[in-house]
Amino acid sequence: VRVRVLLAGVCSTDLEIVKGYMGFTGVLGHEFVGVALEGRHAGRRVVGEINCVCGGCDLCRAGLPTHCRRRTVLGILGRDGAMAERLVLPEANLHPIPDAVTDRQAVFAEPLAAAIQIGRQVHLAPGQKVIVLGDGRLGQLVAQVLAAWKLAPLVVGKSEAKLALLASLGIATARAADARAAKDADVVVECTGTAAGLGAALEFVRPRGTVVLKSTVADTAGLNLAPIVIDEITVVGSRCGPMAEAVAMLARAEVRTEPLITAEYPLQRAPEAIKAAALPDSIKVLIRP
Amino acid sequence: VRVRVLLAGVCSTDLEIVKGYMGFTGVLGHEFVGVALEGRHAGRRVVGEINCVCGGCDLCRAGLPTHCRRRTVLGILGRDGAMAERLVLPEANLHPIPDAVTDRQAVFAEPLAAAIQIGRQVHLAPGQKVIVLGDGRLGQLVAQVLAAWKLAPLVVGKSEAKLALLASLGIATARAADARAAKDADVVVECTGTAAGLGAALEFVRPRGTVVLKSTVADTAGLNLAPIVIDEITVVGSRCGPMAEAVAMLARAEVRTEPLITAEYPLQRAPEAIKAAALPDSIKVLIRP
Repeated sequence: VRVRVLLAGVCSTDLEIVKGYMGFTGVLGHEFVGVALEGRHAGRRVVGEINCVCGGCDLCRAGLPTHCRRRTVLGILGRDGAMAERLVLPEANLHPIPDAVTDRQAVFAEPLAAAIQIGRQVHLAPGQKVIVLGDGRLGQLVAQVLAAWKLAPLVVGKSEAKLALLASLGIATARAADARAAKDADVVVECTGTAAGLGAALEFVRPRGTVVLKSTVADTAGLNLAPIVIDEITVVGSRCGPMAEAVAMLARAEVRTEPLITAEYPLQRAPEAIKAAALPDSIKVLIRP
Repeated sequence: VRVRVLLAGVCSTDLEIVKGYMGFTGVLGHEFVGVALEGRHAGRRVVGEINCVCGGCDLCRAGLPTHCRRRTVLGILGRDGAMAERLVLPEANLHPIPDAVTDRQAVFAEPLAAAIQIGRQVHLAPGQKVIVLGDGRLGQLVAQVLAAWKLAPLVVGKSEAKLALLASLGIATARAADARAAKDADVVVECTGTAAGLGAALEFVRPRGTVVLKSTVADTAGLNLAPIVIDEITVVGSRCGPMAEAVAMLARAEVRTEPLITAEYPLQRAPEAIKAAALPDSIKVLIRP
């Protein structure tokens, strides 16, 4: 199904791809809201699952379609992405957007789903000590989702402005320079986007605790993984999540997205938008075709 | 309680400590069988839990005594070890050995417990595809434990002699050079003792599968951890295990230890024994005071 893109978002993965990650060539972008131009959702606003799957491989048949062995991934693997006027996705990948959800909210559905995925993979319960490492694009959404789930997360970050934004939403924060790593967190969600993030997470998590790893970084030079064994840590890698639940959270206004938008660029200035997204004070940069 | 050491075993951790791991100085050795010289078990043969704990910290009170924040660890952390005529452990750490279990069996209780620990941390069920990476000291025991649990493991290793030994016990084996990593194992137990082990495990494990990490190695240069996130892998660090269950498995003769013993050295030749344990064809080297 062809989709006319209304808005696309710039993600840290895009910045990694620009540096060579995944060896992808083609149109970037996997966060979008658009209008379906044909099929069942024709004329309606939609967001889309980014994994395009075969339905027939062992993993699809095992109920793990996001891990399809023959998948293409929008703007990441073998399929042109959303930083364009049009994109193409299978009809089954599209989720319609309720009228009450604006375009600038809906464009967050994909990263919000990735935040929600944490709760699908790790047992979380109120009363646990949960730390989010990283106050950036994903850390902001993860913290809001955890707060919506009444988990009272503590966000450890480096940007005063980004931590202040979280504090304004009633979320506890600490500057990385001040946070005392005491190996006492039940769950640490690593959203730093850096290779050092896992190492830091292992300093915050308690023995037999869980680290949720969200950053896809290839370089691990200098990382000491011995604490995983010594402290018997469980490290859970976490990627894409349930889009329908993300749309529902947006519709219930459980997540505040507007304060996360740093800037909006027209498509012609997309390279500039990507540069802007890489700046330290930037959170979410949008591109409008 | 003072214990007269009858036999001590050389473990890969000892070899790492000799290289500087843990910054330990003192008497090496945490695998032993001995005779308690006093207390409740006086005159009886015993093996011992290596973690000496405070009983009062948050982790002891949370039921995680092996992670005690104030622990000493026999021959590893703040406490002289078993490569000596005598060692000292709290009475509560000692487990008596049934008469039917020989000294040369009992000395395997500690590493065998570490193998059993896998089943305490990860859900294992017959029918799963389970791969053990590494045919060394720990890999041999892990494979035998998994086989005793009817899990039909495949051991991937580098030593023809060690793989042949496993094959003689009815365990499936493959040479690392021949094993096709197809990302299709439900569980991979990493017992290579090398920094590269985790990277290899990530090539064998299926998406959403589990890697049990047993090797405590500090150097991770060149390791690509992105597959943990992309394939949403769970990595579980695993260390010490239940000694009583290990003694019970030895008493039931569910594990063959005799073929694993490469050599026995007198205590005076302990440095030689440690060198011998580091040789490629060596499995378990014992030291007799």
